[in-house]
Amino acid sequence: MFIPKAFEQNNTDCLINLIREYPFATLITVSEVEGIEANQIPLLFTQDEDKKYLQGHIAKANSLWKSVKNGSEVLVIFNGPNGYISPNYYPTKHETGKAVPTWNYVTVHVRGRLSFIHDTDWNKEMIDRLTVEHEASQKTPWTLNDAPEGYIEKMLQAIIGVKVEITSIVGKWKLSQNQPEKNRNGVIKGLLGQDQSNASVMASWVCVAKQ
Amino acid sequence: MFIPKAFEQNNTDCLINLIREYPFATLITVSEVEGIEANQIPLLFTQDEDKKYLQGHIAKANSLWKSVKNGSEVLVIFNGPNGYISPNYYPTKHETGKAVPTWNYVTVHVRGRLSFIHDTDWNKEMIDRLTVEHEASQKTPWTLNDAPEGYIEKMLQAIIGVKVEITSIVGKWKLSQNQPEKNRNGVIKGLLGQDQSNASVMASWVCVAKQ
Repeated sequence: MFIPKAFEQNNTDCLINLIREYPFATLITVSEVEGIEANQIPLLFTQDEDKKYLQGHIAKANSLWKSVKNGSEVLVIFNGPNGYISPNYYPTKHETGKAVPTWNYVTVHVRGRLSFIHDTDWNKEMIDRLTVEHEASQKTPWTLNDAPEGYIEKMLQAIIGVKVEITSIVGKWKLSQNQPEKNRNGVIKGLLGQDQSNASVMASWVCVAKQ
Repeated sequence: MFIPKAFEQNNTDCLINLIREYPFATLITVSEVEGIEANQIPLLFTQDEDKKYLQGHIAKANSLWKSVKNGSEVLVIFNGPNGYISPNYYPTKHETGKAVPTWNYVTVHVRGRLSFIHDTDWNKEMIDRLTVEHEASQKTPWTLNDAPEGYIEKMLQAIIGVKVEITSIVGKWKLSQNQPEKNRNGVIKGLLGQDQSNASVMASWVCVAKQ
């Protein structure tokens, strides 16, 4: 990914936080059988002493675990909000006319080595962690124990665990930081004037972006 | 991408419409220099008599046009809304306990052959089309003619055109179609009860999804 200096996000806590806030990942693999392939699954960030991982699962019916070799290099993308930025949003456009459209977005790209996990205990612990994470905002969080005896064990037979040992994480926060303050304010106003909910989320991000 | 029957979207008009509504694409390439790489750019769908294309551009400062060969196979992803689905949303969970979390999402995966375009006339026509498309919802759409003499020509020197000749388009509309009607209604209510704007967009999609 091309990252101009103004849009580089190097703060590891911010990168990990984006992954937690937007866990729906695009897992990109390359294999001899399928060529480039992408599967979209939620992935959870974890770490032990000195290694960082992404954990999740695919359906056993998904042939990915047969076509992609264990240890393969993969790219995993996490997407924050994105939105179109019209030249109309820039006050300086009205003065000089010098402006072109662009697109704002927030994204984290993780590289790592993929393993498929067939160990039921590992997979059960992984879905337990995923569940605790995603149920945290529920009034009464659902837990694996809410399912009847043997049900989760049966469901575990239908999935394959996915583990990515992370080798690098980069982030691009493209939030109009290359524009003068009055244009950044214009972008916020412009996005908030759109009737798309996604645009107002993008506006919140531009609100906190520093040049 | 693994697509169970219930989630398959075969209607070409629906696939193209998703691309137009969510044009912010993930362009995935593989090269000897960089391995798997993804760049996120808006892409426009176009077609002539018998061929379909995606058109857009990258910054000339992005080395992608040097590392990836013309004619390379690429995968391009367009993402609609997505959202976490708690087992709590299913009324049947309260009866049988048999439920597990999942994630709903809408995505289109396009395969094709990539070309980089260095022709200024082609690039000018492409950015004009992109602009008309993205400015359509503006009260007073900005056009290339709003820029002062020579400005657009100068900006064109800073970009490289991108053309993908499409070889296949598939879509996955994962919208709880595999659940009984009362659970689909529960999913809609659950999503609308979240305070995330994205969740209510996902709810609108489940509202129109048929089993």
